[in-house]
Amino acid sequence: MSFFSLLNRDGSARAGIMDLGHIKVETPVFMPVGTNATVKAVLPCMLKAIGSKLILSNTYHLYLKPGIETIEHLGGLHKFSGWNRGILTDSGGFQVFSLSEFRKITKEGVAFKSHIDGSSHFFTPEKVVELQSRWGSDIAMVLDECPPYTTDKRYVKESLDITIDWAKRSLKAKNEFPIKALFGIVQGGIFDDLRKEAALKMSELDFDGFAIGGLSVGEPKEDMYRAAEIVAEILPKNKPRYAMGVGKPQDIINLIDVGVDMFDCVMPTRNARNGTLFTKNGIVNIKRQEYRNDDSPIEEGCKCYTCRTFSRGYIRHLLKAKELSFYTLASIHNLYYYVNLVKSAREAILKDSFEEFKKNFYENLNKGR
Amino acid sequence: MSFFSLLNRDGSARAGIMDLGHIKVETPVFMPVGTNATVKAVLPCMLKAIGSKLILSNTYHLYLKPGIETIEHLGGLHKFSGWNRGILTDSGGFQVFSLSEFRKITKEGVAFKSHIDGSSHFFTPEKVVELQSRWGSDIAMVLDECPPYTTDKRYVKESLDITIDWAKRSLKAKNEFPIKALFGIVQGGIFDDLRKEAALKMSELDFDGFAIGGLSVGEPKEDMYRAAEIVAEILPKNKPRYAMGVGKPQDIINLIDVGVDMFDCVMPTRNARNGTLFTKNGIVNIKRQEYRNDDSPIEEGCKCYTCRTFSRGYIRHLLKAKELSFYTLASIHNLYYYVNLVKSAREAILKDSFEEFKKNFYENLNKGR
Repeated sequence: MSFFSLLNRDGSARAGIMDLGHIKVETPVFMPVGTNATVKAVLPCMLKAIGSKLILSNTYHLYLKPGIETIEHLGGLHKFSGWNRGILTDSGGFQVFSLSEFRKITKEGVAFKSHIDGSSHFFTPEKVVELQSRWGSDIAMVLDECPPYTTDKRYVKESLDITIDWAKRSLKAKNEFPIKALFGIVQGGIFDDLRKEAALKMSELDFDGFAIGGLSVGEPKEDMYRAAEIVAEILPKNKPRYAMGVGKPQDIINLIDVGVDMFDCVMPTRNARNGTLFTKNGIVNIKRQEYRNDDSPIEEGCKCYTCRTFSRGYIRHLLKAKELSFYTLASIHNLYYYVNLVKSAREAILKDSFEEFKKNFYENLNKGR
Repeated sequence: MSFFSLLNRDGSARAGIMDLGHIKVETPVFMPVGTNATVKAVLPCMLKAIGSKLILSNTYHLYLKPGIETIEHLGGLHKFSGWNRGILTDSGGFQVFSLSEFRKITKEGVAFKSHIDGSSHFFTPEKVVELQSRWGSDIAMVLDECPPYTTDKRYVKESLDITIDWAKRSLKAKNEFPIKALFGIVQGGIFDDLRKEAALKMSELDFDGFAIGGLSVGEPKEDMYRAAEIVAEILPKNKPRYAMGVGKPQDIINLIDVGVDMFDCVMPTRNARNGTLFTKNGIVNIKRQEYRNDDSPIEEGCKCYTCRTFSRGYIRHLLKAKELSFYTLASIHNLYYYVNLVKSAREAILKDSFEEFKKNFYENLNKGR
């Protein structure tokens, strides 16, 4: 079995399966974010109960803390984190450009200072592949430059050229530092021609899959959807496509519709922690007084541990009492919502009924308004 | 079957069983503290995995937030909290005297101001029984005055008289507000004669069990042990004895030795949250640099989820990264340690080998020094 198998197409929407060796991951898939080798407030045993098979972790953060030596000492990322299912790691490119106080990019790589202690570091495409290989990522990302949302086309073009050059170097590095799967990243900002150029040039390189980067960085929704659609049409059909950092439930459904297979986003866990809960009928802001004596679950019919066990009134009480359990229970529900929304989309694609699924999804959302 | 059955005595140490109707609880028992109807950072499903059958919750806190109406609306304390095993609630006496900014005690009851918003409230013995009855506590405590650690004997004596008067009123109130079990509380401070008087007078009242209050409030250890021993010798043998707020593992073992059956303490969860972990060989301060690359579990041989799944190095990483999972994993281990220490003591008592058990316990502790 190859790394990725496409099982069905319904319009442009795709259902497939990725073989990570020790586990198979059905696509489309939503990956919970575990920046520091832990999904915030959610333990591995809970993630399994939610149905997750693949999570994302961050090279930038793990490299700075606890560092590659500690992770290697403690048996690699899987053993370290107690998560024996799939782990995708990003390359740190995005974080270097969004988190670190200082960075200087050259053809060779990127110098940056840690956002934690200001210490100086240098990432090259080769180093980032080495890191991800050494700590045992199942799916690794190449180092890229992720430009902010901008209309400065020349900047985006120059950035793109560097990213493509680095992608080639990353592929070579994979020979020395083996990884189950290495993904190229397609940049190009909001410029259709640059997105096409990036998709075409990346497609020529023998990656195991492709990420679409630079989405959800502040651009208008239409630009995001169009960029993803342009890229997805060009990328090889027999390899998975991953929209990095996307997004709202609506964004995910819309991008599945144009042929994207993989998603990650901090939204379910981050929003959970401030009391914003996702349901099929839209957002529940659990802080609100109206939920004080509400004995219904966050979402009627939801099968997550939180909804099977606790009322809205109790969840609200935990939040008001600043209890740590609140973060866990809210995060469990939101992750369950995301993971299972995408699973349901997959089932619809397999039954050639994705269009109807999408229509129902939006009708239910609008009912809650 | 009566509420409490004594199964074996080994010296003064006792093994028994409490029948709460919906669940039987073996004694000696350690009760995790769930002040706000949640054990901090530990979900009910985890508490069950730890082996807990009985937790403690606080009348003072629950009365103020979310309030009796909300808890009743949401089906009572068990349904509200998602914890369908045993719940003991304290009376709020201790909190009124330790937390609230203002309180004025009269024969009738105690006026106090909320530590949350300064609002004014009045607790009577009857009201406190009513609250615990209405929200469905399995085991309720009478309202008492819990004096601070003091050598002012006259104050302690006056306080004791009020507590005994309130205890009688509480028993009467139980006729109107049914509760599975109501416990009297024996005060008397560090004064042997007052402790004896309190124990004798309480013993005459038809409570289902007796708490020993005013321990672990700053008095010397010897005073605590002596007070517990004096009281335990006097209390009826066919009813459980509960040392409120006790304590360190050593304290618990020593009090089991003099015939105490029930314990609660915030120590396992509170200490967990600042990185202090209990093991049979003593304290592990997981913050320490020496654990950075340590791939052994917190405690070798411990069967808790944390120790079965994660290394010291990873737990330390979570603490350093300020990850919420740290609080959960550390609390799980410490609660497992406490709950199972007391279970092991029980097994030893049933085999008439408590003295040897206690000797081993101290030998192991000293090994870690």
